[in-house]
Amino acid sequence: MNDTPPRDEDAHYRERAQRKKELIDRRIARATIDRGVFVLNTGNGKGKSSSGFGMLARSLGHGLQCGVVQFIKGSFATGEEAFFRRFPDQLDYHVMGEGFTWETQDRARDIAAAQAAWEVARRMLSDPDYDFVLLDELNIALVKEYVALDEVIAAVRARPERQHVVITGRGAPDALIEAADTVTEMRMVKHAFKAGIMAQKGIEL
Amino acid sequence: MNDTPPRDEDAHYRERAQRKKELIDRRIARATIDRGVFVLNTGNGKGKSSSGFGMLARSLGHGLQCGVVQFIKGSFATGEEAFFRRFPDQLDYHVMGEGFTWETQDRARDIAAAQAAWEVARRMLSDPDYDFVLLDELNIALVKEYVALDEVIAAVRARPERQHVVITGRGAPDALIEAADTVTEMRMVKHAFKAGIMAQKGIEL
Repeated sequence: MNDTPPRDEDAHYRERAQRKKELIDRRIARATIDRGVFVLNTGNGKGKSSSGFGMLARSLGHGLQCGVVQFIKGSFATGEEAFFRRFPDQLDYHVMGEGFTWETQDRARDIAAAQAAWEVARRMLSDPDYDFVLLDELNIALVKEYVALDEVIAAVRARPERQHVVITGRGAPDALIEAADTVTEMRMVKHAFKAGIMAQKGIEL
Repeated sequence: MNDTPPRDEDAHYRERAQRKKELIDRRIARATIDRGVFVLNTGNGKGKSSSGFGMLARSLGHGLQCGVVQFIKGSFATGEEAFFRRFPDQLDYHVMGEGFTWETQDRARDIAAAQAAWEVARRMLSDPDYDFVLLDELNIALVKEYVALDEVIAAVRARPERQHVVITGRGAPDALIEAADTVTEMRMVKHAFKAGIMAQKGIEL
């Protein structure tokens, strides 16, 4: 026996939605700081770079002036480069890496390429004309110590107040995680490549 | 006392790089299956949708024909919509959700909107003219049972062999994870919003 009257599902739905709306509205009201953010994507899963390029698309959609430096990929991910090269008025796009390091097999050349990329990145981080800066795979250069971590943190901290910066790559150093506003670990649950499926245009390339 | 001769750092670097290259080359040689993949982005962190839109940019860069259905977001993420609407020849873009459900507070209307979105998605999944299909925030509609999970899995499994599909949203059901080729859990390490920073154009909006 259950004396509870039958529940009005629609009223219940409205109440729950109303409570959720109030919670979200309170959170939005509490978020009053308006400045550029530092977003960091790391972890061993797919989506670190593609999320950065998705934010780049959003930024271009809002008419922001954008800069991209690709630190490591040179031979990979040609699709995004082909696409974003269509917007030279809004986007300053630099591909500095010469492919993954196991392709070049020359440490001095890898360091020189990473340092040249970092010089371009540092210029963007000091220039208020850039609203959005994507430093793709910079973490790889930091892990390999081709670029100095303290220089990167100092340049990111000193950047123009309204400028957004997104840094990607696996193995983000702890001090960089500490310095960032938003950090996501892209965790691999599974990957098509491990099941024998070739890298696909539009997905990986 | 240590009789080991001084290490040739450069030779060591080349050897390691060479071994890594051989490992990667063997893996690439083993990946012989060439077909469309199903990519699933889930978890509570940032980057699920923006990664989907990054893959969309890559696909457009390769000249692929693309379709997008946004299931839940209507009032959010206006930047990506403004941007991708510029490519009507290559991209069929549908925003079907009427904002997050706690904004509408009307269950019947939410279900109708999700079902209408799913009908558009199902049409794309059965049409070989679409090379790449992004079903943004579909997981939310599945969790809320606005769209039937078995229908989605059947439609994804029966899609054209070369077609890529990307599904995003937190709380992906286990059966969908099972059906996918590549699954990433975007895990929130920290988020600017929780530190009181407003949602930013180009980053969240």
